[in-house]
Amino acid sequence: MKTAIFRKEHFNAAHRLFNSAWTDEQNNQVFGKCNNPNYHGHNYELIVKLIGEVDPVTGYVFDTKVLSDLIKKHILSRYDHKNLNLDCEEFKHLNPTAENIAHQIYKTLRSLIEPSIDLKVILYETERNFVEYPA
Amino acid sequence: MKTAIFRKEHFNAAHRLFNSAWTDEQNNQVFGKCNNPNYHGHNYELIVKLIGEVDPVTGYVFDTKVLSDLIKKHILSRYDHKNLNLDCEEFKHLNPTAENIAHQIYKTLRSLIEPSIDLKVILYETERNFVEYPA
Amino acid sequence: MKTAIFRKEHFNAAHRLFNSAWTDEQNNQVFGKCNNPNYHGHNYELIVKLIGEVDPVTGYVFDTKVLSDLIKKHILSRYDHKNLNLDCEEFKHLNPTAENIAHQIYKTLRSLIEPSIDLKVILYETERNFVEYPA
Amino acid sequence: MKTAIFRKEHFNAAHRLFNSAWTDEQNNQVFGKCNNPNYHGHNYELIVKLIGEVDPVTGYVFDTKVLSDLIKKHILSRYDHKNLNLDCEEFKHLNPTAENIAHQIYKTLRSLIEPSIDLKVILYETERNFVEYPA
Amino acid sequence: MKTAIFRKEHFNAAHRLFNSAWTDEQNNQVFGKCNNPNYHGHNYELIVKLIGEVDPVTGYVFDTKVLSDLIKKHILSRYDHKNLNLDCEEFKHLNPTAENIAHQIYKTLRSLIEPSIDLKVILYETERNFVEYPA
Amino acid sequence: MKTAIFRKEHFNAAHRLFNSAWTDEQNNQVFGKCNNPNYHGHNYELIVKLIGEVDPVTGYVFDTKVLSDLIKKHILSRYDHKNLNLDCEEFKHLNPTAENIAHQIYKTLRSLIEPSIDLKVILYETERNFVEYPA
Repeated sequence: MKTAIFRKEHFNAAHRLFNSAWTDEQNNQVFGKCNNPNYHGHNYELIVKLIGEVDPVTGYVFDTKVLSDLIKKHILSRYDHKNLNLDCEEFKHLNPTAENIAHQIYKTLRSLIEPSIDLKVILYETERNFVEYPA
Repeated sequence: MKTAIFRKEHFNAAHRLFNSAWTDEQNNQVFGKCNNPNYHGHNYELIVKLIGEVDPVTGYVFDTKVLSDLIKKHILSRYDHKNLNLDCEEFKHLNPTAENIAHQIYKTLRSLIEPSIDLKVILYETERNFVEYPA
Repeated sequence: MKTAIFRKEHFNAAHRLFNSAWTDEQNNQVFGKCNNPNYHGHNYELIVKLIGEVDPVTGYVFDTKVLSDLIKKHILSRYDHKNLNLDCEEFKHLNPTAENIAHQIYKTLRSLIEPSIDLKVILYETERNFVEYPA
Repeated sequence: MKTAIFRKEHFNAAHRLFNSAWTDEQNNQVFGKCNNPNYHGHNYELIVKLIGEVDPVTGYVFDTKVLSDLIKKHILSRYDHKNLNLDCEEFKHLNPTAENIAHQIYKTLRSLIEPSIDLKVILYETERNFVEYPA
Repeated sequence: MKTAIFRKEHFNAAHRLFNSAWTDEQNNQVFGKCNNPNYHGHNYELIVKLIGEVDPVTGYVFDTKVLSDLIKKHILSRYDHKNLNLDCEEFKHLNPTAENIAHQIYKTLRSLIEPSIDLKVILYETERNFVEYPA
Repeated sequence: MKTAIFRKEHFNAAHRLFNSAWTDEQNNQVFGKCNNPNYHGHNYELIVKLIGEVDPVTGYVFDTKVLSDLIKKHILSRYDHKNLNLDCEEFKHLNPTAENIAHQIYKTLRSLIEPSIDLKVILYETERNFVEYPA
């Protein structure tokens, strides 16, 4: 049986939810106040879950210090204190919903962690709204 | 791979745990102080998890505002500031344990959400006791 | 300069807010759904704060184990898994608002703790509604 | 002795910290990544504390439902899902630090609550950075 | 479909991470400050998850009071206020990482709970580092 | 009226509570399992509160980034992942209770922060036991 380890990090960012192919009316109807053209923002809490075998030499599935450094270098440096729509290439044409942000974080981390280790990304936009990928 | 979204809501309710077919002694032995005939109560924290595909047009699995409104209309209006044993038809002959409350919430929400979306209900009775259905 | 120590405990109880001298209309107008005649309930979080000098022999203002035992013996045994209106003499003619519950807890603990130590009671009815006495 | 009651609410907003009289170098030196010209954002947690006498008729210092409605009408409607620098007149020439936001909330609420009741505002910008006014 | 119940408990312990077959340099490189030969410590939060069928007579998958007592008797008595490396036989030759502590807790509880009920152990070493077994 | 700012940090440490002038029986009677001669440990949460005037040029009472760096340099480097009794000169002859640790942190920070700013230290040993100095 495998073991999972989790590491929690956080970043603060601004965003706006909208579909550029829609009219203002459509965007307001679907995205409500999240469609404010001047942006709003969140304290995102990010939990990265890695599933694998425990190395009998170290007692670790994966060193959480190494995982924390990976997240800081590749995710937080990219999103922390940023405007997701304006500052991040990947959200120029992709709506920065929690779902889509989680997908991008997964894609980035997946390429950095050996394939034998399974990966999940849990992202809290607020204490009351959060997502997990893959489910 | 699918994505999950979670929405957290809360309600405050009174309840009493007991089996009406049992003697007081049996009820006290199994349910202890939860069997107080005058009731006690909890701040229930409810997390609803929906699992599905992300709609490429909105970036959503399911609009959390719509989900929150569904929970308020069909669950919170029914249980918030209520005595579960006395005010709720479904617990007249069903012990309102966290397990059974979660089952009822699942049954109600399952009929309201399209079948292509998987549903889970997580219910905290206290910070230290909680349940998930289906597991 | 003095030092404060805090001990957190919790109890679960049912209650109903109302003024027996009022009509149902008046009670509903002021207390809304908290006036449900069948009661509702809460997970109360209680923080007791003691302010005094640190004893140089122990390094303690007050032993938190002793404080925890006092709270369990005199407060939790009285309110945990109880209906405050029906089971507790002090709320037979006193509305069990968070303010009034905090006053009663203060009165009970004040008589048990030496007068040289200042006492405050903080009581959470929910994560969003709480009180402190004395302020 | 008086009693305090607390009500917790939250809002999500974008902001940028900077002094328009300074050069970019000065702003970057003092405000670092909080000076991102494209803004970043936070989930602000707001706790309003009212200190007064308990009304013997209701058992309340102040009805938390009424307080919640006041906060929603006068504070959340103004700041929730807004860009504090662009959307809020008061921050056009005032740096929207947690300290200054708390001052503005205090000023607004102070004019709405009777002078016999003392008021404090506690504002969390993140779980690790928060302010209180007046201290 | 099965239902899961969760019970949260906690214990405070000291530990040191190292591999006795390694040099100090190797241990410092891999375990950093966790390799302090004088030990450091944590407030461990333990969540035990049991998955099974709800008993129609009680409305329980498993009585959380019974589960809490099992955890106190067999896990907390063994690890609470202990030095894991020095006081616990099982960690004399096994590195007390969160992964390995979770495995030991699983092994102990697995033998005490009927096989028809699935078991998972979630262990928080800090709010930011936690593990789950089996994943 | 002044404004307070708060910064939260954390450290993990081992300690043992005892009075070296006492017999083992006395130490066990007063300090119970906290007197384990092999030590136990905690995740300490530290909140530093500074009270002063808001600088109209920056909008800050005190830059929380600067405060965080001060805490890291002078407090966390000293206590994080340490055995307080063995590794810290100040606790060689002073019992490392939460009260005494808070006093030492206060003394260290007080000498580093300008006298016009008031200082308080809040230290959580566990979620349920915490102290404040000065009260």
